[in-house]
Amino acid sequence: MQSQIHEFVVRPIGYVLDEKDPAEAPPEVKVVEILPGFARGLEGIEQFSSLWILYWLHQLPEETRSVLMVHPQGDRSQQLRGVFSTHSPLRPNPIGLSRVRLLKREGNLLYLANLDAHPGSPILDIKSGQ
Amino acid sequence: MQSQIHEFVVRPIGYVLDEKDPAEAPPEVKVVEILPGFARGLEGIEQFSSLWILYWLHQLPEETRSVLMVHPQGDRSQQLRGVFSTHSPLRPNPIGLSRVRLLKREGNLLYLANLDAHPGSPILDIKSGQ
Repeated sequence: MQSQIHEFVVRPIGYVLDEKDPAEAPPEVKVVEILPGFARGLEGIEQFSSLWILYWLHQLPEETRSVLMVHPQGDRSQQLRGVFSTHSPLRPNPIGLSRVRLLKREGNLLYLANLDAHPGSPILDIKSGQ
Repeated sequence: MQSQIHEFVVRPIGYVLDEKDPAEAPPEVKVVEILPGFARGLEGIEQFSSLWILYWLHQLPEETRSVLMVHPQGDRSQQLRGVFSTHSPLRPNPIGLSRVRLLKREGNLLYLANLDAHPGSPILDIKSGQ
């Protein structure tokens, strides 16, 4: 294997807002605020009803990145399995992936259903149409 | 919006091999080599026929990360659109996402169909079963 760069930097393009903010969103809806510097990247997104959201699993301590085997769903009666063959949030690069429904866009706010991310999660990317 | 961490570091867990290596793979098949330190994370992955692969778009110069509007498919007859509503590889966090078929695993080598990544691309994560 050739010589390689061994790390890359990712930066949030926005965040999942706290559940009560804005107050009018129903509880199953999560609101993502895209930072003003990235808002132009949203142009045309209204035409998609489904999106992929990539986010950072920011609540995990750094040492969980070295975990490579887990009990699926934390169930110790199940055999240990490699993290890449589970849904575990413990993984070397703690990036979450959710297929969401885009309910509404208001400027740089996206109202989303089915987003697994917790409030405060940094959003890394939004992908559409696949 | 509360105070936040503004960058995170991701590290390759493996790489897409050059097309001729190993020589016996047919051209539409891409081979990913997972680094020995992460190989245990693959345990149990054989039970999945489809996987999500997250990879780093390593061939793009750093300045393409500031591009927020593109002509879809590079077609200048189409109106400029925000990168989050296109498939463009130009995006603030150049992470690629492919839904692949797992054809075979040989130790820390994965033989994959439908992987869009170029040879040499760093692999960031593998997700299964969603």
